[in-house]
Amino acid sequence: VAITGKPMDEHQRIAHYLAPLTQGEAGAYGLQNDAAAMHVPPHHQLIITSDGITAGIHLPDAATAEQLVRKLVRRNISDLAAMGAQPWRYSLNLHLTGDESPDWWDQLAATLANEQARYGMVLLGGDCSSGARAAHMSMTCYGLCNAAPLLRSNAQPGERLYLTGTIGDAALYLHTQASAFAHAYYAPEPPVHFAQSLRGIASSCIDISDGLGADAAHIAQASNCRISIAQDALPLSASAQTYRNAQPNENADFWPHILGGGDDYQLLFSAAATHADTLAAHAARHGIRLTDIGVVEAGNGVRVVNAAGDAIPLTRTGYRHA
Amino acid sequence: VAITGKPMDEHQRIAHYLAPLTQGEAGAYGLQNDAAAMHVPPHHQLIITSDGITAGIHLPDAATAEQLVRKLVRRNISDLAAMGAQPWRYSLNLHLTGDESPDWWDQLAATLANEQARYGMVLLGGDCSSGARAAHMSMTCYGLCNAAPLLRSNAQPGERLYLTGTIGDAALYLHTQASAFAHAYYAPEPPVHFAQSLRGIASSCIDISDGLGADAAHIAQASNCRISIAQDALPLSASAQTYRNAQPNENADFWPHILGGGDDYQLLFSAAATHADTLAAHAARHGIRLTDIGVVEAGNGVRVVNAAGDAIPLTRTGYRHA
Repeated sequence: VAITGKPMDEHQRIAHYLAPLTQGEAGAYGLQNDAAAMHVPPHHQLIITSDGITAGIHLPDAATAEQLVRKLVRRNISDLAAMGAQPWRYSLNLHLTGDESPDWWDQLAATLANEQARYGMVLLGGDCSSGARAAHMSMTCYGLCNAAPLLRSNAQPGERLYLTGTIGDAALYLHTQASAFAHAYYAPEPPVHFAQSLRGIASSCIDISDGLGADAAHIAQASNCRISIAQDALPLSASAQTYRNAQPNENADFWPHILGGGDDYQLLFSAAATHADTLAAHAARHGIRLTDIGVVEAGNGVRVVNAAGDAIPLTRTGYRHA
Repeated sequence: VAITGKPMDEHQRIAHYLAPLTQGEAGAYGLQNDAAAMHVPPHHQLIITSDGITAGIHLPDAATAEQLVRKLVRRNISDLAAMGAQPWRYSLNLHLTGDESPDWWDQLAATLANEQARYGMVLLGGDCSSGARAAHMSMTCYGLCNAAPLLRSNAQPGERLYLTGTIGDAALYLHTQASAFAHAYYAPEPPVHFAQSLRGIASSCIDISDGLGADAAHIAQASNCRISIAQDALPLSASAQTYRNAQPNENADFWPHILGGGDDYQLLFSAAATHADTLAAHAARHGIRLTDIGVVEAGNGVRVVNAAGDAIPLTRTGYRHA
């Protein structure tokens, strides 16, 4: 594509910024064909997830191309992680204002290049249009699974409940705008490689996108059981712990964000207690902090118990988009 | 989902309007899981295409849910047809204003139900968000191909050039707003079943979305050959013929729309002349009008010749979106 002094049209932008991201994958046809082709390896299922992001709705109006792309990719990767799938291919639908600068496009392409390298994906197709009020991007991510995928629906009473990483920093960022929490909000790190080691071990799994309480409730409902969480066991970052210590009333000013806020993109899963050593070994191998936060019980719903043994109410907080 | 007097939220809308469209397909998990799963049948490639549509950009501002959905589906199906793939699954990303009425949603769901039955697809996943200036929908369609897909890139000098259906009505609708042309514009009928019979016969194939001249140029470029089209051979609808006859200067007022307008979603393909009888039989079986409109030659670019033997210039017309 000849780059002249004139603004590029959509075909030129696709050829210049996006086609290199196919990395020569034959089925992408250089983004010049009507459709792409995919040869799924034998004995693998294809796991498919699709999520969008809009400046001003899912991220602040002033979000950069890097922030938009990174969060879009991580949200999608988190859904693949929740099923224990290995990221493989993606397609991208850009619905933009049309006022994006060459710098914006450079940042978009560079961030996509970083993200696809990080997760082992290549771009396969998509489309691009203008006229949106705010940049809207949607992504479809394709993962591979050579065994039964992880689901929400098989938690069994008596099993332990585990959480990866730490919880609540993204919600604390929305509440405080403190820079210590910004990374968790803008660049969550779903444990997608560790997740693949959970196949055959975890009986249920979900990613924390809506909030710990809400997502635990999804497991409880799908598995027809009760999820019981020990509040004091919840893994907090050092910054979250510092923030907690500064609150005169942590029950009002701290825990609702931790339990009710979303956007953490960690994994919540259940497994028989006999797997504890195996899980610890997988977590160590992948550099993942893993915490036993509770138990699966007969019943339904979610119960969170504080250090005094009292059940505490769950509310939903965070950046509520329409 | 309990339907109360209150407006539904997005989870409720997905459960009420969209989940039934999965028709019990196991891999869709009732649209309640983080991702969907797909078992591609052995010895099949998956063909993937993704296109979006926005009210006010790709269709008029006042477009109904039925018009938006139908055109969105047909645009995607046309891309599968161009590769000779059989429609199979789809996912849907809705980015809406949030002001859509229950009637709008009913119409969306009913049209999706009709369209997926027409093309033999089921819904597999997607997402939904609000806050758009105008309704924007993007769809990813998955097709199956148990042989090499049709491409743009193998046209050979000496082959004949064929066009399905008739050409130009969609562009004439944009030019005239005459109701006789509305169906071609709002509900194009890509010949997706006939297209599957072209595998192993057609050496190149493309769907007419940008316009006959522009899409012929795509074949010429990808195949490194020249596409020569006989203007008088082009198949016109009865309405287009009537319109042509009423123009004092058809070279200025008629042919530019036919050659340069887009949105026809017919197929343009090349095949060796020895396949002519087989092609006619396949076309008859599928009820498809098939017209020999020219020839593939050595060289490059597109040449359109009128009845007098003069080459005529190609221009691009139609509803130009940004």
